[in-house]
Amino acid sequence: VQAEVQQLLQYKERTAGGIMTTEFVRLSPSMTAGQALAHIRSVAGDMESIYACYILAPDTGKLLGAVSLRDLVMADADESVTEIMRPKPITVSVDDIQEVVAQKISKYNLLAVPVLEDDGRVVGFVTVDDVIDVMIEEQTEDVLRMGAIEPGALELPYMTTPFLTLVQKRGTWLVILFLSEMLTATAMGFFEEEIAKAVVLALFVPLVISSGGNSGSQATTLIIRALALREVALRDWWRVMRREVYSGLALGVVLGIIGFLRIAVWSAFSDMYGPHWLLVALTVGLSLVGIVTWGSLSGSMLPFLLKRVGLDPATSSAPFVATLVDVTGLVIYFSVAMMVLRGTLL
Amino acid sequence: VQAEVQQLLQYKERTAGGIMTTEFVRLSPSMTAGQALAHIRSVAGDMESIYACYILAPDTGKLLGAVSLRDLVMADADESVTEIMRPKPITVSVDDIQEVVAQKISKYNLLAVPVLEDDGRVVGFVTVDDVIDVMIEEQTEDVLRMGAIEPGALELPYMTTPFLTLVQKRGTWLVILFLSEMLTATAMGFFEEEIAKAVVLALFVPLVISSGGNSGSQATTLIIRALALREVALRDWWRVMRREVYSGLALGVVLGIIGFLRIAVWSAFSDMYGPHWLLVALTVGLSLVGIVTWGSLSGSMLPFLLKRVGLDPATSSAPFVATLVDVTGLVIYFSVAMMVLRGTLL
Repeated sequence: VQAEVQQLLQYKERTAGGIMTTEFVRLSPSMTAGQALAHIRSVAGDMESIYACYILAPDTGKLLGAVSLRDLVMADADESVTEIMRPKPITVSVDDIQEVVAQKISKYNLLAVPVLEDDGRVVGFVTVDDVIDVMIEEQTEDVLRMGAIEPGALELPYMTTPFLTLVQKRGTWLVILFLSEMLTATAMGFFEEEIAKAVVLALFVPLVISSGGNSGSQATTLIIRALALREVALRDWWRVMRREVYSGLALGVVLGIIGFLRIAVWSAFSDMYGPHWLLVALTVGLSLVGIVTWGSLSGSMLPFLLKRVGLDPATSSAPFVATLVDVTGLVIYFSVAMMVLRGTLL
Repeated sequence: VQAEVQQLLQYKERTAGGIMTTEFVRLSPSMTAGQALAHIRSVAGDMESIYACYILAPDTGKLLGAVSLRDLVMADADESVTEIMRPKPITVSVDDIQEVVAQKISKYNLLAVPVLEDDGRVVGFVTVDDVIDVMIEEQTEDVLRMGAIEPGALELPYMTTPFLTLVQKRGTWLVILFLSEMLTATAMGFFEEEIAKAVVLALFVPLVISSGGNSGSQATTLIIRALALREVALRDWWRVMRREVYSGLALGVVLGIIGFLRIAVWSAFSDMYGPHWLLVALTVGLSLVGIVTWGSLSGSMLPFLLKRVGLDPATSSAPFVATLVDVTGLVIYFSVAMMVLRGTLL
């Protein structure tokens, strides 16, 4: 057992190597189905699972095929195991992360999947129920992080969590976000004079900064998931960045046009936005392009940055990105305003 | 097969009845292990899974116990199945939703769980791999919805999704949120005069409304999850509402005090917030109490409302709640300001 624990410890958590079971039924290609069943009866006593039986090359330990208990029970006793085995079973590598393992097990409807070392030796297997435990845990954590709740807040059901525990777990995150969001008041303070001159600018502050937050949340959600599923790797940051800049520009132009039209149409029917409404509309439209692009860019790069320094990318939860983009969005908005409105309103 | 499809159709999707397999190995309590294995060999040909074998009372069809293929293989051929069966296996009801089934399978490390009708008859079973498919699907949907991305956007991996598809799927939600968020500009418009008189009020707009959005996201995340896991039911809305009002008040008071102190401390060192800084601090503090409470309340009630009218509660994703609370938060903030600052700044 100690040797097994040692061996498991050498693999990373959250990988196939970290969650696999190392004891499995090893069959020789020279066995018949009857011999294999007899062998299973003799060794199965202290095994967790005997549904996965692997046929290994006697010399190299390489995987030749897999048979299930069902296959063996259904076969004639004197058939060779090599005749009933599935010759090229689906496998995973010890370094594959658990989400990839889960996806393979799900996609191919497996009960268990053998885990191979780099040299092709079978070192263990992961069962579908190992994976399901992992997934329930991850799912809860991901969803909670997205909703700005510290994972662990929901160890108990909602109704039976003591009131003070609930408030404390929620409060921790709310206070952290509140303290970060205070930077918005500081940023707005720098532009107090501009707001005093052109109050109309204040009216669009929630609209423009929330658009940056939303596009940032989207980008961060997509990238956290792509990183978790290994669809992208750390070294892809540059390609992702280019993609997100283009996506952000495209989305920003769409929102910018809608924002511009909103102000233009309203101004046709009322004097709400004053005589310089066209410049105000231009300010809102242009800053939306900048803020949405910046939101996509920073939202997509933050998970890479966190992963690079060894943290879980999922920590850059959507509300955290939103707060970050709120502050920088204000700076972008008022900077654009100062350029566009200089000499007229400002 | 048609009868089976008919039977499955009578159960709701996303319940044990909707995802179960209806063909399973039925054993009689009078069989020996050897007879049971022979019976399995004769019927297993066209069965999807033979790992779950149930021993049923011959007259009523009620579940007496379960044996696994492993148990039968390991037993002596002439042992009675009643001696080797597990007598009171874990079961689920046809109406249990799939998340509950997944949790039971995970908690008790089952490969399959029998599904019972209300009268105690076994009508099928759910395997661990049925459940894992369901969970991967749900997990992706939940996480995407939380990040304001239409589920279905990620059918392809991030890098291979065509650029225009990516932009379109993200754009749809961004535009919907942008159009709703335009209400903030309308709301701010009503208070333009107040802002002109007291520009200092504008400085705290992002801070106070984002706090409402964050507390709303938290509440909606907790309740969507509690509803999905059946920890709370529709009829509990009243108890949840009371709990959320108290939580919201507690959290609002904490943030309100921090906000108040922030302004008070800054004012001790600078003249940034003017001579009436105490009243401004009071406005921010009091409106935080109101906005955070309102955020928790509306964030928690929206999933109930959506469920009541037959929609998926998860649609009230965090960014949607944030947008809703942004608009109402502005109204609360400026209303509090008009009460507190009347006669001084306003």
